[in-house]
Amino acid sequence: MINGKPHIVVVGGGFGGIKICKLFAKENVEVTLVDRHNFHLFQPLLYQVSTSVLSTDEIAYPTRSFFRENKNVNFFMAKARGVDQANNVLLTNHGKIPYDYLVLAAGATTNFFGMKEVEDHAYGMKTIQEALAIRNHVLHEFERADKPYRTDAERKEKLTFVIVGGGPTGVEEAGAIAELRDIMKKEFHHLDFNNVSIKLIEATAHVLPMMSQDLQDETVRVLRSKGVEVMLETQVVGYDGKILKLKSGVEIPTSTVIWAAGVKAVEFIKDCGGECARDGRIWIDEDLMVKGAVNKNVFAIGDCAAFMHGDMKRPLPTVAPVATQQAKVCYENIMKLIKGDNNLNKFKYKDLGAMATIGRGKAVVNSPKMTGFMAWCAWMLVHLIRLAGAHANFTVAIKWGWNLLSGIRLGRIITNIKLDSGKLTLTKVEEDHSNESNFNEGKMIVLDKED
Amino acid sequence: MINGKPHIVVVGGGFGGIKICKLFAKENVEVTLVDRHNFHLFQPLLYQVSTSVLSTDEIAYPTRSFFRENKNVNFFMAKARGVDQANNVLLTNHGKIPYDYLVLAAGATTNFFGMKEVEDHAYGMKTIQEALAIRNHVLHEFERADKPYRTDAERKEKLTFVIVGGGPTGVEEAGAIAELRDIMKKEFHHLDFNNVSIKLIEATAHVLPMMSQDLQDETVRVLRSKGVEVMLETQVVGYDGKILKLKSGVEIPTSTVIWAAGVKAVEFIKDCGGECARDGRIWIDEDLMVKGAVNKNVFAIGDCAAFMHGDMKRPLPTVAPVATQQAKVCYENIMKLIKGDNNLNKFKYKDLGAMATIGRGKAVVNSPKMTGFMAWCAWMLVHLIRLAGAHANFTVAIKWGWNLLSGIRLGRIITNIKLDSGKLTLTKVEEDHSNESNFNEGKMIVLDKED
Repeated sequence: MINGKPHIVVVGGGFGGIKICKLFAKENVEVTLVDRHNFHLFQPLLYQVSTSVLSTDEIAYPTRSFFRENKNVNFFMAKARGVDQANNVLLTNHGKIPYDYLVLAAGATTNFFGMKEVEDHAYGMKTIQEALAIRNHVLHEFERADKPYRTDAERKEKLTFVIVGGGPTGVEEAGAIAELRDIMKKEFHHLDFNNVSIKLIEATAHVLPMMSQDLQDETVRVLRSKGVEVMLETQVVGYDGKILKLKSGVEIPTSTVIWAAGVKAVEFIKDCGGECARDGRIWIDEDLMVKGAVNKNVFAIGDCAAFMHGDMKRPLPTVAPVATQQAKVCYENIMKLIKGDNNLNKFKYKDLGAMATIGRGKAVVNSPKMTGFMAWCAWMLVHLIRLAGAHANFTVAIKWGWNLLSGIRLGRIITNIKLDSGKLTLTKVEEDHSNESNFNEGKMIVLDKED
Repeated sequence: MINGKPHIVVVGGGFGGIKICKLFAKENVEVTLVDRHNFHLFQPLLYQVSTSVLSTDEIAYPTRSFFRENKNVNFFMAKARGVDQANNVLLTNHGKIPYDYLVLAAGATTNFFGMKEVEDHAYGMKTIQEALAIRNHVLHEFERADKPYRTDAERKEKLTFVIVGGGPTGVEEAGAIAELRDIMKKEFHHLDFNNVSIKLIEATAHVLPMMSQDLQDETVRVLRSKGVEVMLETQVVGYDGKILKLKSGVEIPTSTVIWAAGVKAVEFIKDCGGECARDGRIWIDEDLMVKGAVNKNVFAIGDCAAFMHGDMKRPLPTVAPVATQQAKVCYENIMKLIKGDNNLNKFKYKDLGAMATIGRGKAVVNSPKMTGFMAWCAWMLVHLIRLAGAHANFTVAIKWGWNLLSGIRLGRIITNIKLDSGKLTLTKVEEDHSNESNFNEGKMIVLDKED
């Protein structure tokens, strides 16, 4: 209790966390929102940062700004480390936080399925930093490939971009990189773009599993027309930073692998005192309470929670609508408990359909079924109105319009975040190719023989 | 010679470098533009990135995009290391580049005047990365100060922001941080903002040395009205990351020192075979040729060049108009030499006046003399039309308008670039304050005694 009011602690400021805090803000309770970042991230557009379309502050919104007028919602920037359910305390790197009710909304991270080597060399795409690292790396590989002393094999390796995972993230990333290639083509006056290869690898027989067969086929058709090699029923078994190994024995030389093949709950969830599924998500009951919660006051919602009931074959997917719909029911149930009513509501998911862009002016939407430009307009509208911050609505609309009309991407700025053995780091040591060759002998600038 | 055409190599894609390449693009020559970054940076607005107003891609423009239609201008991303004048070769980390004519337009970096300790702990503000590091650090210090276990002394140290140097950069940064404080005040519901202190330290008796006395006085008055402590005739002698030491013996506990007190030419300039001034700038003749150039084909323009002739008391200042005006004359002179005309033009600087913002809706302009909102409108217009990329004109105009009307800064995103012993690095290890104190005992949330 704080000042005589129930204290609700929420871990994670994603779609679910922000929504539930906003709901509690109107009530006579004190809320502490804990997040290791100071911003809410609009994850569905992360791929646009990684491909130079949008900049970070267009998809990241300062968490505190949501609660400017809500004095009973307090932001606490810290990394959650675990939950001591017996004592009603959340453990963080900035101390312990006692709670009356706890909501776990901590989200998900990339799942490399235990392949350590892949994890060390492939790019995940769940954070702003990862998206920036991908942007920097992809742009830099074009610059590196453009150097005159490169062999053809080196150039091909640097210009081979592999995306693993045929879900919306993988499909959208592959389409966006294909368009980035077309833009780069206009600005690299001497680079042979026949060396560029973009591959989308999917383990199953279908991309976009939530869509119908005809939309899946349309997606593959559009991707192929953009020059993306779509490889279905293809499994990755290893990647050492240079060679991507497939189960079939095929080896693909590439310096860029973007891993969008799976997610799992963030590490912290396993230390919350609940039982977890194989992908780390914590099992919850129909009332969204963590299964076996010691004091009946710990709930979980969104990507970090595994919800499966009745005739469901698998837990609900890790998508924003699940998180926001759960936020509402979780809020109602905690308010009931506060008022002494133990007759909690049961959560029922309402599927609102799915959509994915396949690049500039093209998308697929499954309900109502749409493809092409119409679908893209629908996709754009839905994403624009859900973006936080009126400023972002404006500037993103301008950028997308600009991008559609002119085909120019303005975010092509190489800062120096890069991936090094599974850790994001800054480029510190400059590359040294000063003695590898002489500029004269290069291919980029051909000197006249007589000079 | 390349394909029988003279090969002009330009080092640096700043205001001078881009301008001269654009001029050569129309001529029957081959141009190679060398830069270690793939973007042109609009440095005058860097302080707005450091204070969360603008995002990086609004002030950084991909260098290659300038020359999309100019097939004779080739971009070469590399770090220049020196010049072998005798052999007409530029040395880079990606090999040697032979030239017929060389233009040094490599720019300037922060001058810590040999104070290594200060260099290791204070933030420079000449690159995108430094601006992002300042943004992250300042925002993070507010979050750190907000933690309940902090002592008053720690909180004061974290909320003391010192800017050293009363030139335009220092003045603008101080004004922008003061406004950031006012925005933060609305969103930190429990932090005592009386602990916040913003100090602008200037060694001489005046801020904005290029302005008249009355504009200088007006600037100090406005800054003070915003709660900035302006300390004139104050010299810094040391900073260890915790205590800023003044010549007077006064010590200021602070975890943030932003150094805008001086610039010097980038390191590379000293290895170009010319004679350099004390601040590292290379001496040039009236025709902009490097003094004593061995083969009479090496020029220097902009911040990296020291130009002083006739009755001038000191070299021209390191500002954009000098660089762009020199670019034009340098281009004319190289074209003359190519055509065999040795009667080179002499450079004469036309001073267009100076302007500086002192925060939202306020600025000073010295010719024609203006202050307040009118000056701010003039400042805004001049900067908007000079920004590269029509998209940036739009989005920056929207952001400034938004900022003016709502007072909201949307770029307040803490990514994880930080300064560590003079090197920018990424935060890897999470802070551990888990045992320092108990959340219960903190000040931020006061627990009822009876609970």
